[in-house]
Amino acid sequence: MHTDPAQYVRSAIRSVPDWPKPGVTFRDITPVLQDPRSFRVLVDLFVYRYMQQKLDLVAGVDARGFILGSVLAYELNLGFVPVRKKGKLPFRTVAEEYSLEYGNSSVEMHADSVRPGQRVLLIDDLIATGGTMMAASKLLQRLGANVIEAAAIIDLPDLGGAQAIRDSGLPVYTVCQFTNLPDPA
Amino acid sequence: MHTDPAQYVRSAIRSVPDWPKPGVTFRDITPVLQDPRSFRVLVDLFVYRYMQQKLDLVAGVDARGFILGSVLAYELNLGFVPVRKKGKLPFRTVAEEYSLEYGNSSVEMHADSVRPGQRVLLIDDLIATGGTMMAASKLLQRLGANVIEAAAIIDLPDLGGAQAIRDSGLPVYTVCQFTNLPDPA
Repeated sequence: MHTDPAQYVRSAIRSVPDWPKPGVTFRDITPVLQDPRSFRVLVDLFVYRYMQQKLDLVAGVDARGFILGSVLAYELNLGFVPVRKKGKLPFRTVAEEYSLEYGNSSVEMHADSVRPGQRVLLIDDLIATGGTMMAASKLLQRLGANVIEAAAIIDLPDLGGAQAIRDSGLPVYTVCQFTNLPDPA
Repeated sequence: MHTDPAQYVRSAIRSVPDWPKPGVTFRDITPVLQDPRSFRVLVDLFVYRYMQQKLDLVAGVDARGFILGSVLAYELNLGFVPVRKKGKLPFRTVAEEYSLEYGNSSVEMHADSVRPGQRVLLIDDLIATGGTMMAASKLLQRLGANVIEAAAIIDLPDLGGAQAIRDSGLPVYTVCQFTNLPDPA
């Protein structure tokens, strides 16, 4: 690697115009994952950042947050906890609602998935409005967790999510940003 | 580890009665994942099995198959490819339908996620009827992949899925089995 690893990862992300609806550009991480080198560079950025943070758990958000979150948990010798969409977890759960553009959604965790005082890293693939991350963080805090940071691969700063999460008191880390402006040539 | 690692993993799986419906016992892997030791023992069983198999890709089934699949891809220096539920992938896709108890479902992959001849390991958390695994395997084969094995943590042999997959010509590996019979004392 003779280049900036974050830039290397960013350049492997595919921009798909007009998905899931006209006028929206979707940032697709699957090309990063399917190439062994860019996948490893991506994971290692997070490993280097968190290896000395004395974390206890990584909580990954359903479903793309599972991909990065579980690798990171394994590499750092931590447990992995899924934050799931409603109705997916079989044991006693706690839930937190949040607002979407139209209507509400919610995230669920097993009530026994975190012990009070555990240091938890929260992971998803992308921060858009930040609604999911903030709901997941509230849920973790209700279970007594000490949420250390909200981390993702991609930040969409035009939507203000990372700023909103920081304003709520939770640090944020993302590998790269995509705005609606054209990329510099 | 002075005990059998597969048995160690099995003993950490939680059986939740009457979920998702009365009379069904759900085998819950979240306690395995959230404990750093059992999570590592679980992953390493797969690492040891596949580290000399000269694989190219790990394909993980949405969503619990992402958890094990992505770690294994990273550890073995392979790419990771998600097999997703319909409507989740933004680029050009191929889909394969399969039958459920009531009605149909389907799995999707990006059309460019596998190159012809690539050696692919297919991973999910559990094999029940085997319908999802067989649909995913067909999809991979349509893309030209050489599917080496279908692997999961749990086999429910009463439902016959692993046998059906083997009968279709694809080898199967699972860490442990759960039947409807009571566990031996």
